[in-house]
Amino acid sequence: MPDLERPYRLAARDGQAEPTVVTIGQLRIGEGCPVVVMAGPCTVESRDQTLTTAQWIKAQGATVLRGGAYKPSTSPYGFQGLGAEGLEILAEARAVTGLPIITEVMDPRSVELVCRYADILQIGTRSMQNYDLLREVGKTKTPVCLKRGMSATLTEWLQAAEYILLGGNPNVILCERGIRTFETYTRNTLDLAAVPALRELTHLPIIVDPSQGTGRASLVAALSKGAVAVGADGLLIEVHPDPKNALKDALQQVTPEEFAALMHGLRPIADAINRGVA
Amino acid sequence: MPDLERPYRLAARDGQAEPTVVTIGQLRIGEGCPVVVMAGPCTVESRDQTLTTAQWIKAQGATVLRGGAYKPSTSPYGFQGLGAEGLEILAEARAVTGLPIITEVMDPRSVELVCRYADILQIGTRSMQNYDLLREVGKTKTPVCLKRGMSATLTEWLQAAEYILLGGNPNVILCERGIRTFETYTRNTLDLAAVPALRELTHLPIIVDPSQGTGRASLVAALSKGAVAVGADGLLIEVHPDPKNALKDALQQVTPEEFAALMHGLRPIADAINRGVA
Amino acid sequence: MPDLERPYRLAARDGQAEPTVVTIGQLRIGEGCPVVVMAGPCTVESRDQTLTTAQWIKAQGATVLRGGAYKPSTSPYGFQGLGAEGLEILAEARAVTGLPIITEVMDPRSVELVCRYADILQIGTRSMQNYDLLREVGKTKTPVCLKRGMSATLTEWLQAAEYILLGGNPNVILCERGIRTFETYTRNTLDLAAVPALRELTHLPIIVDPSQGTGRASLVAALSKGAVAVGADGLLIEVHPDPKNALKDALQQVTPEEFAALMHGLRPIADAINRGVA
Amino acid sequence: MPDLERPYRLAARDGQAEPTVVTIGQLRIGEGCPVVVMAGPCTVESRDQTLTTAQWIKAQGATVLRGGAYKPSTSPYGFQGLGAEGLEILAEARAVTGLPIITEVMDPRSVELVCRYADILQIGTRSMQNYDLLREVGKTKTPVCLKRGMSATLTEWLQAAEYILLGGNPNVILCERGIRTFETYTRNTLDLAAVPALRELTHLPIIVDPSQGTGRASLVAALSKGAVAVGADGLLIEVHPDPKNALKDALQQVTPEEFAALMHGLRPIADAINRGVA
Repeated sequence: MPDLERPYRLAARDGQAEPTVVTIGQLRIGEGCPVVVMAGPCTVESRDQTLTTAQWIKAQGATVLRGGAYKPSTSPYGFQGLGAEGLEILAEARAVTGLPIITEVMDPRSVELVCRYADILQIGTRSMQNYDLLREVGKTKTPVCLKRGMSATLTEWLQAAEYILLGGNPNVILCERGIRTFETYTRNTLDLAAVPALRELTHLPIIVDPSQGTGRASLVAALSKGAVAVGADGLLIEVHPDPKNALKDALQQVTPEEFAALMHGLRPIADAINRGVA
Repeated sequence: MPDLERPYRLAARDGQAEPTVVTIGQLRIGEGCPVVVMAGPCTVESRDQTLTTAQWIKAQGATVLRGGAYKPSTSPYGFQGLGAEGLEILAEARAVTGLPIITEVMDPRSVELVCRYADILQIGTRSMQNYDLLREVGKTKTPVCLKRGMSATLTEWLQAAEYILLGGNPNVILCERGIRTFETYTRNTLDLAAVPALRELTHLPIIVDPSQGTGRASLVAALSKGAVAVGADGLLIEVHPDPKNALKDALQQVTPEEFAALMHGLRPIADAINRGVA
Repeated sequence: MPDLERPYRLAARDGQAEPTVVTIGQLRIGEGCPVVVMAGPCTVESRDQTLTTAQWIKAQGATVLRGGAYKPSTSPYGFQGLGAEGLEILAEARAVTGLPIITEVMDPRSVELVCRYADILQIGTRSMQNYDLLREVGKTKTPVCLKRGMSATLTEWLQAAEYILLGGNPNVILCERGIRTFETYTRNTLDLAAVPALRELTHLPIIVDPSQGTGRASLVAALSKGAVAVGADGLLIEVHPDPKNALKDALQQVTPEEFAALMHGLRPIADAINRGVA
Repeated sequence: MPDLERPYRLAARDGQAEPTVVTIGQLRIGEGCPVVVMAGPCTVESRDQTLTTAQWIKAQGATVLRGGAYKPSTSPYGFQGLGAEGLEILAEARAVTGLPIITEVMDPRSVELVCRYADILQIGTRSMQNYDLLREVGKTKTPVCLKRGMSATLTEWLQAAEYILLGGNPNVILCERGIRTFETYTRNTLDLAAVPALRELTHLPIIVDPSQGTGRASLVAALSKGAVAVGADGLLIEVHPDPKNALKDALQQVTPEEFAALMHGLRPIADAINRGVA
């Protein structure tokens, strides 16, 4: 019988001392493993944009390709993603580069379809408390990257993870992506203290998204270094061949050249903490 | 062609000066209409609890019965509602009292079912940016009460309403229910300035939920008066025959006696602004 | 010996059931007394501006004149107030109208000077935790209006009041003026739930500043009604003969005509709760 | 004539490309210089506690001693510091160890006294907008460490710095110490993005306080590494010989042993970015 006083059990460190390591082919994500860099465009806009970016980020040492086929758009008039066609493009990029792909699922009715393509399912910040969606991805075995709700406490976030774990899917990765505050210079306030705090509370892998977390391309490299230094198991970084003409989030995507410089600056930090980059 | 610079069009006051009045049978909800009081338990727990409450709140002058059959629960171990059985109980309470019912829908796959029972669909704070759900309720003609996301700006909230309007459903009611801040004495910070602010921005009806908005039964009556004084078109109030033993939100539900006193205190305010209670 | 576990004692309701009523001449401010309206310009800009405004607001039924001689300015290049000359102008306005005056003191070294002029000392939001200033005003007997810090919890606010009470000055009035949140449509989020919440926690009088609280003149009348409906003992309202040309806070000051309409709309609410306007 | 549209000028990077380097004896604090570690007790409690801590932190490589003689206390019943006696103890610790000292000044009337002892004046979070205090320290030449207000935007913070610079004191160091959010696991949310963001906006040195910033001793080492990785010019760390019995902030002070481990982990990060520890 569950203890209702404890907000979560399966996600709790005190119930499982051993870190959960999520495995995708050869890649291992979790405490103690080399730092995993997931990179790619915010949104899959075209075959050419996606393949070009995938090859570039692979050449720089990224090991997972990110890209949105289904996009949550604050405005109903904004670009909503290419949908199934976007999934096909991602699959082609994987075939060409060998990189596993992470992509968002928003609708419980799409979980089955997205699972056919994705190596990692992303649950976005607006969906962190979409319990029907959590239950649906909990029924699969596909790794799930659960982003923090933009006003979620650590406890609420771990309770959301618990929904997935309870469904039978142990492969949950937590992704800090900034919380909403009064500050307006950055789009969100990236809460890097969440990384060591979660390490105390849970055995699940923890990654950081400095692109969403700051909303400013010029800050992404510094915060990537910071995230690795505080102990993150991975990074999720938006890269676009031509950010100014991106269909979404133009301000926060770095160029391929900026991404190369970012990776160059990141390695010494990852080495300094004896983890290296995957 | 939509103007992408304008965050919303159909919801905007400057596109429709005339207030939208949502009609449910004889009941009219909107600017200039008498204040509508929607009351009832947070969650439908049993037939007896629901019918008793329904009859009591009707006797005190409430004109809509609220009650959750599908409940979003932060914890996966919390009570998730009676589901379809809860909808049946609500339907019986309507048959007995004649009160229309408002109840939450969380899953796009449940919209059709809930529409068969509900007079007003409630979209909860966690679902305000669940775009697939918004699109689904936008395809119906059932009035939709769209609660503010707990960290949503007024603009984002109206953009969420735009999703529903754009689907073809003009019957959207906005419900202020408090935003998340650093204050811990109250569960949320009820933003009553949102009411006159929205009046400037939109023609849609605006109601207030002081129960979720404060999380404290002792504050609900005062904030109900405040909501009406700032111009709200209605209230959504949690009433439970025995709050201490409620399955959810025990602290914020008022007793039947407290609800009677609340209604007694509310009428002079509603009269003072020449609206009265519906 | 003080109980260190209790955050405040002198300010606590459970130590003094009887409400504190602050008296200024014939005027009484506190729970159960008629609602007191304090009005006037944000900043004393000139003799003419101040006297004109004072006479107008008196004619409309305000019973205290507000006006800043020493102004906290976020920018060092902003207008800092007329200082001692501003105090002289306020004194003249009092002599002409008979209205007591409330004005801000920021520097512990100015307390003695400001006390010679002010009927009520105002401690601004930026000074709520300026403990040396609190101690200094605590040594006087002049009533103190202590505004809530823009990110202060109710507990911290009452602890700040405790500093003044502990110094020997029992005449403390609390003023809710909005807290800082992510919302940008309003300058602050006015927390009207703080009024009944404080009523549970303290015996001190509670007033509300809807001008600072919203930062928008168009919202001030509605929030004034809301504040009275939730039980506030008074209001602090910025009125300027020509807001567009005001030296500070042009957007939030109402015109004399708007103030007249505000007072007209306020009386029925104050009557509805059986308090009336002082 | 100042351009009123620009919120600050003297603090702005676009007016001074060259970084400001604050010099204290041999020590240099600023962009490009080795990372400076300031450490010591939250509060000077006794001669023994302070001297012991000073010697320990020096042995571990800290180059500035921190310690509060005048303490802002949220509760009037809390410990307010030893005052002038605390300053004498700090001076003795400096004489014994050779470490320059940083200590807080709260009252404009105490600036002259504190300047006689302090190598760096600290302006605490509650005083960031205490303009009379800012003006007073602006008249001195003593370096000033200006902590961010707990709900201050970057712009407001730089405007506060501008008050000091405008008074004629160019030696301003900015200290990020966390902002107030809804998260309760940490005392504040440390905004590490502020470091590279400020680097874009200003030429002033930027340090980070992970002790106040998290409120949890267990998180201080990780956030120290993160702060250095994102580019901070220094750290401000609370160390206490016996945190459990500290008079203030017991939860956030690290033990001497934890501080030694922290320094050990910090050096590789400082080396990885080619700065080293001062």
